[in-house]
Amino acid sequence: MRAADVIRRKRDGLALEPTEIRELIGGFTAGEVADAQMSAFCMAVFFQGLSDDESAALVDAMLHSGDVLDLASVPGLKIDKHSTGGVGDKISLCLAPLVAACGVPVPMISGRGLGHTGGTLDKLAAIPGFRSDLSPERFVALVAERGMALGGQTDSLAPADRRLYALRDVTGTVESIPLIASSIMSKKLAEGIDGLVLDVKVGSGAFMKTLEAGRALAQTLVDIAVRAEKRCSALLTNMDQVLGQAVGNALETREAVDVLRNEGPADVRELTLLLGIEMLRLGDVEIDPSLARVRLEAALADGSALERFRSIVAAQGGEPRALEPGGLPEAPDRDTLTFDRPGWVEAVDVEAVGRAAMLLGAGRSRAEDAIDPAVGLIMKATVGDQVEPGQVLAEIHHRESRGLAAARKALAGAFRVGETSRRPSPLLLAPPLRDGTEADSEVNR
Amino acid sequence: MRAADVIRRKRDGLALEPTEIRELIGGFTAGEVADAQMSAFCMAVFFQGLSDDESAALVDAMLHSGDVLDLASVPGLKIDKHSTGGVGDKISLCLAPLVAACGVPVPMISGRGLGHTGGTLDKLAAIPGFRSDLSPERFVALVAERGMALGGQTDSLAPADRRLYALRDVTGTVESIPLIASSIMSKKLAEGIDGLVLDVKVGSGAFMKTLEAGRALAQTLVDIAVRAEKRCSALLTNMDQVLGQAVGNALETREAVDVLRNEGPADVRELTLLLGIEMLRLGDVEIDPSLARVRLEAALADGSALERFRSIVAAQGGEPRALEPGGLPEAPDRDTLTFDRPGWVEAVDVEAVGRAAMLLGAGRSRAEDAIDPAVGLIMKATVGDQVEPGQVLAEIHHRESRGLAAARKALAGAFRVGETSRRPSPLLLAPPLRDGTEADSEVNR
Repeated sequence: MRAADVIRRKRDGLALEPTEIRELIGGFTAGEVADAQMSAFCMAVFFQGLSDDESAALVDAMLHSGDVLDLASVPGLKIDKHSTGGVGDKISLCLAPLVAACGVPVPMISGRGLGHTGGTLDKLAAIPGFRSDLSPERFVALVAERGMALGGQTDSLAPADRRLYALRDVTGTVESIPLIASSIMSKKLAEGIDGLVLDVKVGSGAFMKTLEAGRALAQTLVDIAVRAEKRCSALLTNMDQVLGQAVGNALETREAVDVLRNEGPADVRELTLLLGIEMLRLGDVEIDPSLARVRLEAALADGSALERFRSIVAAQGGEPRALEPGGLPEAPDRDTLTFDRPGWVEAVDVEAVGRAAMLLGAGRSRAEDAIDPAVGLIMKATVGDQVEPGQVLAEIHHRESRGLAAARKALAGAFRVGETSRRPSPLLLAPPLRDGTEADSEVNR
Repeated sequence: MRAADVIRRKRDGLALEPTEIRELIGGFTAGEVADAQMSAFCMAVFFQGLSDDESAALVDAMLHSGDVLDLASVPGLKIDKHSTGGVGDKISLCLAPLVAACGVPVPMISGRGLGHTGGTLDKLAAIPGFRSDLSPERFVALVAERGMALGGQTDSLAPADRRLYALRDVTGTVESIPLIASSIMSKKLAEGIDGLVLDVKVGSGAFMKTLEAGRALAQTLVDIAVRAEKRCSALLTNMDQVLGQAVGNALETREAVDVLRNEGPADVRELTLLLGIEMLRLGDVEIDPSLARVRLEAALADGSALERFRSIVAAQGGEPRALEPGGLPEAPDRDTLTFDRPGWVEAVDVEAVGRAAMLLGAGRSRAEDAIDPAVGLIMKATVGDQVEPGQVLAEIHHRESRGLAAARKALAGAFRVGETSRRPSPLLLAPPLRDGTEADSEVNR
């Protein structure tokens, strides 16, 4: 294989052999294919796409560039969830223990946040003492003993993807559906899962701004999972509004715990249930959606989901007291955003809300930035709400005014208050996209 | 400027500011913009093209990444010629002294060959003692004193182009008309010329395989020249046949000297005259094509063109005896290619002929390969010729059978002999493409 020939053939829209893609990624991992060749290849893929065969080969090559966890020793179908990222998305924190409490083993490996979206790992890090840097052995042992584990991405899982993503970030080649899908799937398949539920976010706070783009990504993800002989469902969900009220790490962890306490915002609870229903289906625990919902609601009501979270937090070194009121870091200072004229909230620029939280210190603009777990926002109004002059639209939790002025500005610009009452978009934008096997089993039962 | 943003905007088809392109190339030259970013940019340009403004800015940035020769001290309009590369193209060697003998100063800087096409520098290097590594001062002095200089590309002229070309070569981003045109023009404008005649080759032995592609390149080159306030003409010429008979360095130099002796193959002589007519026009020496032809033919007939070549060869260290019969290196061994059945030569795969010569040692497959100046081919039949069984189609000049078997095979495959008599394509494929100024002066005189 000559890398330049492979790049040229992709550029010219010709089909690549799976072996060529494997050799390209292998050469990249080994340092024989230069960054400059890989970035040119990614740009060619941006324009020409990847076939199903090519995507499957790319995922396979990146997956096998590092370790793949072996969860065969754990009984049952191991199911994880992945979200493409949104603002206020703390679902993983309540979903994993909820589903684990219902009998589906959840081996969850999460990343850190960058830019306007937060990372699950950062939210977990708001729990004093919590450690996500688990050895593979410890991770597998936790899934076996506690039915779940909350790990962080390490250098040993899909290292080619890590290098490729860093390269794409600086070469204008992030926005390619097959590359995005391959990156997600190589990391997730390295967890040794049997199935994956995907939460593909669509809207102003999401990477995918249109339903069409979201649907294309969801379909590509499901196709890759099917090729890899994994069970898969994808939900297309609304990111034209902040999910729940909390934005910021400790605040979001708090809200997730509220849901586990059978409280919390309705949308966070509902999305947790919708994704949980898919996970119970894929895990062969309950394939009837209504019955699955009943089981999940029961686990919230009887405290078993919260208990499962307490158990895993303790097992991973977190202070159990952190899940009690006042147990998480709190920002020392408060401010509020109000509006001076009456009207309706017509739209929320969710990305701007995420940026406001980032400016307070809740997120990173660069990978090396430190995070303040306590700061963030509590959104008090959303699309469709009627607001009066002086009414608080959002609470700002800050530390000694750090980033406050810029955050206030971003936040004020995020609300479009006008004279028309708009109905908020639904949480679920389309019926679940399920792999063929699942659809068949539904028909056949 | 963030390089990733510039790449992304080009990728998305948005217009870039000239300053952005200048900063990108400046950053690349300074090592602040990574190779991986530059190659992704080039791939985006492959798909999205460059506007006239963008091309002009790219040329300007690459041109000013190094030294620009100052020929202001030399009276008259300094005109050079550039060919996009073909097989058997030894025109520069006879054209430059011919035009210089007619009073147009020719500051010519040439490159080495790579792949199936030879480089003017390699042909000059077949002259024992000849040195093309001239200092800028010496180069300018030669143009002033002898009316011409034959230099080699150095690291100081358009260094950004040199690095960019090496990068494009390994990243599948060579085949982009705006990038090809910018590369050519940045090197040529660094010579400090007032005008440039372009020989854009089209056909099986050329980089541009179709007249359409050749025309697009020619137009882009002329547009860039006009933007840079240089005079410019472009000819679209036939590369479906080898130019002349000789392929290989000393053999080609010999053939060029034959033309200067008022002998040599008709096509080499005619193309030299056609390009010379344009150079005399651009140099304001003779704008009437018929009168220009008369002057050029006289300079061939009276020996002044040959004398000019002798003079520059001597000035650049070459042995004057080299231009006499037997003065150039000759290969020790000969072989011939014959065909065993009668017919007509219907087509010649010129690229395969070039490859055959390369295999004998006349060219480089990699930049670091050494060249044997003596080896090569003498083509004895071309498109439209009727051939009899046993007739020699080509003479092979080799050294102890080095590369002979592979070269024979390539050469035999290059000839398509069939039952139809085809008229060879004309040498000039279209009327000259001239910059607006030139067209006006023709109308106005």
